[in-house]
Amino acid sequence: MLDWFRCLQEGRGSEYLKSMGRAINVDDFRRRAQRRLPTLVFDYLEGGAEDEYCLRRNVEVLRNLRFLPKRLRDVTRPSCSIELFGRTCSAPFLIGPTGLNGVFWPNGNIALARAAARASIPFVLSTPAQNSIEEVAEKAGGELWFQLYDINRKLSENLVEGALRSGYKALVLTVDVTVNGWRERDLRNKFAVPFHYSWKAIWDGLRHPSWLWQFLRQGMPVMANLVTKEESNAETAAALARRQMNSALSWKDLRDLRALWPHTLIVKGVLDSYDAIGCAKQG
Amino acid sequence: MLDWFRCLQEGRGSEYLKSMGRAINVDDFRRRAQRRLPTLVFDYLEGGAEDEYCLRRNVEVLRNLRFLPKRLRDVTRPSCSIELFGRTCSAPFLIGPTGLNGVFWPNGNIALARAAARASIPFVLSTPAQNSIEEVAEKAGGELWFQLYDINRKLSENLVEGALRSGYKALVLTVDVTVNGWRERDLRNKFAVPFHYSWKAIWDGLRHPSWLWQFLRQGMPVMANLVTKEESNAETAAALARRQMNSALSWKDLRDLRALWPHTLIVKGVLDSYDAIGCAKQG
Amino acid sequence: MLDWFRCLQEGRGSEYLKSMGRAINVDDFRRRAQRRLPTLVFDYLEGGAEDEYCLRRNVEVLRNLRFLPKRLRDVTRPSCSIELFGRTCSAPFLIGPTGLNGVFWPNGNIALARAAARASIPFVLSTPAQNSIEEVAEKAGGELWFQLYDINRKLSENLVEGALRSGYKALVLTVDVTVNGWRERDLRNKFAVPFHYSWKAIWDGLRHPSWLWQFLRQGMPVMANLVTKEESNAETAAALARRQMNSALSWKDLRDLRALWPHTLIVKGVLDSYDAIGCAKQG
Amino acid sequence: MLDWFRCLQEGRGSEYLKSMGRAINVDDFRRRAQRRLPTLVFDYLEGGAEDEYCLRRNVEVLRNLRFLPKRLRDVTRPSCSIELFGRTCSAPFLIGPTGLNGVFWPNGNIALARAAARASIPFVLSTPAQNSIEEVAEKAGGELWFQLYDINRKLSENLVEGALRSGYKALVLTVDVTVNGWRERDLRNKFAVPFHYSWKAIWDGLRHPSWLWQFLRQGMPVMANLVTKEESNAETAAALARRQMNSALSWKDLRDLRALWPHTLIVKGVLDSYDAIGCAKQG
Repeated sequence: MLDWFRCLQEGRGSEYLKSMGRAINVDDFRRRAQRRLPTLVFDYLEGGAEDEYCLRRNVEVLRNLRFLPKRLRDVTRPSCSIELFGRTCSAPFLIGPTGLNGVFWPNGNIALARAAARASIPFVLSTPAQNSIEEVAEKAGGELWFQLYDINRKLSENLVEGALRSGYKALVLTVDVTVNGWRERDLRNKFAVPFHYSWKAIWDGLRHPSWLWQFLRQGMPVMANLVTKEESNAETAAALARRQMNSALSWKDLRDLRALWPHTLIVKGVLDSYDAIGCAKQG
Repeated sequence: MLDWFRCLQEGRGSEYLKSMGRAINVDDFRRRAQRRLPTLVFDYLEGGAEDEYCLRRNVEVLRNLRFLPKRLRDVTRPSCSIELFGRTCSAPFLIGPTGLNGVFWPNGNIALARAAARASIPFVLSTPAQNSIEEVAEKAGGELWFQLYDINRKLSENLVEGALRSGYKALVLTVDVTVNGWRERDLRNKFAVPFHYSWKAIWDGLRHPSWLWQFLRQGMPVMANLVTKEESNAETAAALARRQMNSALSWKDLRDLRALWPHTLIVKGVLDSYDAIGCAKQG
Repeated sequence: MLDWFRCLQEGRGSEYLKSMGRAINVDDFRRRAQRRLPTLVFDYLEGGAEDEYCLRRNVEVLRNLRFLPKRLRDVTRPSCSIELFGRTCSAPFLIGPTGLNGVFWPNGNIALARAAARASIPFVLSTPAQNSIEEVAEKAGGELWFQLYDINRKLSENLVEGALRSGYKALVLTVDVTVNGWRERDLRNKFAVPFHYSWKAIWDGLRHPSWLWQFLRQGMPVMANLVTKEESNAETAAALARRQMNSALSWKDLRDLRALWPHTLIVKGVLDSYDAIGCAKQG
Repeated sequence: MLDWFRCLQEGRGSEYLKSMGRAINVDDFRRRAQRRLPTLVFDYLEGGAEDEYCLRRNVEVLRNLRFLPKRLRDVTRPSCSIELFGRTCSAPFLIGPTGLNGVFWPNGNIALARAAARASIPFVLSTPAQNSIEEVAEKAGGELWFQLYDINRKLSENLVEGALRSGYKALVLTVDVTVNGWRERDLRNKFAVPFHYSWKAIWDGLRHPSWLWQFLRQGMPVMANLVTKEESNAETAAALARRQMNSALSWKDLRDLRALWPHTLIVKGVLDSYDAIGCAKQG
C-alpha cells in the first residue's frame, strides 16, 4: 500500500511510474479507463446522480482538505496506520464496496481484494459482486468485509451466513439507497440489468476490443452471490442492478441483523445525527 | 405528481422517460422548448432582468440547498405532502402564476391546471392568462388560486368576484411589479403588447412551424380575463403586458381587498420584514 | 436624470431606447465606445492598474450589492433624491472627476456638466480638464464642483480662486495619487503627455475616422486650466498627465487649503479610519 | 531595489521599461522565460506538486492581500525598509533559496546575489547551487544567507563551516522536504539528476538554442558545493536533486546545528504552532 510513499521517499519515482504504466495521477488512470472501457461502462463508473452536482461538490470538498505537517520528527519509517473498528489498518482508507468491479476487469473483485491484502487494508465485497463471497475469501484472503443490500429477508440471511462462514470480519449494511439515484448518464445509455442489447451498445463494445475480448474469453459477468443460491433468479438480479431495495428497511431489521452477525456491524449512509445515535444504541 | 418518484423507486426509469419524451432533466426540457418556441417567446420564458444577474443567483442558491436524509425508516409509501395555508398539498410546491402559458402552448393554462389537479397541488392562474377564470375552473378543476395584478380598481373587483364565483380557493396579490423589470432580451427582441410585426419576428415565427401551426389553427392568444369584461380594451392589455401596474398600490388597497375576498389572501413579493408584519396584521 | 426610471414606469422602454441609440445596458455603451475611440484612448478609459485585479474586484463588489425593497407604498412619484454635503441631489450619485472627458468627445466636460444640470446632480470638473473652470461655469451651469490635483502651491491657489470666482460649490482634493498607478495598458500603448506620435498611434487614429474628424475640426484637446494661467507650460501638463503630484502633500497643506476655500471641502481617496478622523477635525 | 518605485514616482515608466526589455508585469517575464528555457527546465521552474493545487491556492491568497494606504503624508522619500532578524532590509522581501538558478542562467546565483546587494536585500544561496559558497561571497558580496539541506552529518558540517568562513549572516535550515513533493511535470519530463539524455530532452534543448549556446560555452552546471568537498560524488548530488534528505532529521539535529552556528538560524517550513514554539526555545 505504501509503495508509492516509499518510492517518493527513496526518490524512485520513475520505477514506481513504470510499475503503474506511466500513470502519474488519478486523472491519468481515469483517462486510461475511459479508453479501455465501453462508454456505457465508463459512464457507470464515473457518473453521478442529478446533474452530477453532488459529485462535483464531493471532489471540491476533498480538494479543500489540508494537512498540518509537523516537522523535525524522524520519518525514516513513516506509518499511516490507524485503528479502525478495533483493528489496525496500514492506511487511513480502505477499498469500498463498488458493485461492478467484475465488469471493469474480469474477476476484478479478486484482484482488488489481493491488492488490499498486500497493503494490509480492508476490502469490502459488495452484494452484487461478480465473484461470490466464498470465491473471494478463498482466492484473495486478507481482511475482508461484506456489504449487504437488503432486498428480501431470506436472501439477506443466506448472504450473512455465507460471509460469517467464510471468515469475513465486518458487515456493512447500506441504508441510503432505499430509493435509487437519478443517474442521468445511465439513463441516456440505457444501462440496465438485464442488459439491453441495443445496436448502440453493441457498437460501443466493438469499439473497445481489448475489454470485449477479455469478457468473451471469460464469459459475461454475473452476480455470483445470487446465482449460487437457490432463490436466485433474473428478477432479483435486476432489482439489485437498479438498486431496488427493501424500502421498508427500518430499525427492527437492523436489530435482527445485529442478532445474526457476531462481528463488527457498520451502517453505511447515515447522515443525520439522531440516526447515528440510534445506531450506536444497537451496539 | 409523484409519478417520477414512484418510477424511481420501482426502477421504471425507462417507462417514465418514454412518457416524458426522453427528457431526463430540466435542461432537456429547456432545450426542447428552445427548439419549439420562436426566439422571441423563448427569451421571454427564460430571460431575466438587468444582466440576468439575479436569475443566476437564484439558480445558484437553489443548487446550494441540501437535504439531510433520515435512514432506516419504512419508505414503502413515501409522501411529500405538506400543509399549505391550511390545506394539504401532495408536494411541497405548486404551479406558480406565469403570464404567457397560453403563448407557449394553446390553452396552456388548462393543460397546467389539469396536471396540477392530477397531482393534487394548487395551480395559480395569472391575471393576463389566455384562458379566462371561468374557463379554467370549468375545464380543469382541482385546487385553483388566482393571481391579481392591480391595474385599476374596477377591473380588480370584477376579477376578484369572478374568481370567488368560480370557486377559486386563494387570491395571490402581486405587489413587486409596481415598476417593471428591465428585461434586456425582451427589449432587444422588441417583445411587446400590442405585438409588433417586424420582419424579424415574422421570420422567427416561420422558422418554428410547429408552434406557428398550432396558433394559426387555434387563433392567436388573447388576455381572456380582459376580453370578456366590458371595460376590456387594447390599452389595458398593453398596460398588463408591460406590467404597468397601479403604482399607487398601498396598504389601504390591501385592506379593501381583504374585505372583498373571504378566503386565503396571499401577498406575493414581500421581502422586507416590516412589510411582512404589516401583511400579517391585515389577516 | 430619472428619464430612464420614468420610461420604465410608463412602459416606454422603446422610446427611451431610441433616444439612447438602442443601447440597452452599460455593456452596450462600452462596446460603442470601443468602436468609436482609438484603442489608445479606449484603453485609458477602461483600463486599470496592476493586472486590473482591483478593477475586477470593484465590479464584483458592486454586483453583490442588493436592495431590500419595501412594498405597498405609493410610488406614483418616486424620488431617489438624497442630501449630500448639505445639498439636495436628485439621485444618489454624481458625475465624478475624470481627466480626459474632452478627449473622448470634443468639449466633453461641457456636455457632461449640462447633462448633470438637467438631472440636478453635481458635476465634478477635474484639474486636467480640456475645458477651463470659467468656460464650464459659463456654458453649462448647474451644481459644479472642482477637483484639485496639488502639483505646486502657486498653481493650486490660482485654480482654487478661479473655482471660487466662478461659483463652484465644492472643492474635491485628490490625495490618493501621490504615486501613479502602474497602468499596464497605457504602458503598452505608450500613452503619455506630451503625446508620442508613433506609427502605431497614427494608424490607430486613422482607423477611427469619426473620432479623428471631430478632433481635427475642433483642434486637439489641451489642458485648459493650465493654458490660460501664466505659469502654464508643457512640463506641468506632462506632470499632470502622468499624475506626478506633489508627493510631499500633507496635513499642513490641507489646513492651508481649508483656510483658502470657504465652501464644502472633500478629501478624495481616504481609506484609513485615522485619516478620516484627521480630515473631520479640519472641518 | 526601489528602481521601479522611483521610476513610478518620477513618471519615468518608459525608461524603466526599456531597462526591463519591455516586460511590464510578472507575466511578461514568465512568457519570456518560457520562450528562452527548454520545456524541461521551464516546467521545473514553474511547476508545483500534486495537480499544482497548492500552487494555485498560494497565488490566490497573495492576490487577496490588500493594502490600507494612509494619505496626506510626505512621501517624497518613500522607504519600504523593515527590520528582519535584527538587520535592516531595504524592502520587505528577499531572494529566497531556489536550487537551479545556475540552470536558468549561467552563474545565475552570482547575478541574483549582485542584484540583491545592489538593492540592499538578502540573497539566500541554496545547498544544491551551481556556484559555491565561496564563489558567491567573493564575486557578489552583499548580505548573504545560506540554505541548508541536511543530507548527512559530515556534509552539513562542512557546508556550515564554509558559510561561516565566507561571512554568511544567516543559516536557513529547510525541514519541509523530508519527503519530496510529487512534482508531476518533472515526472512526465523525466527531469532527474544525473540528467537523462533522452531524444525528447535533446530535441527540447535544440529548440532553445540561445539557452543551449550559453551552457555549451560555460559548461554544464554542477552542484558546486558538493564538487569541491572531498566526499562529493554523483550519488549525493542525485540525492540532493531529488530532495532525498535525511528523513531522521529531528530536534536533536537542530540543537547540534544551533551549537555549530553562531549567527541567526532560521528553520524554514514550520507550519504547526507547537513546532514554532519548539524552535523558539532553541533560540
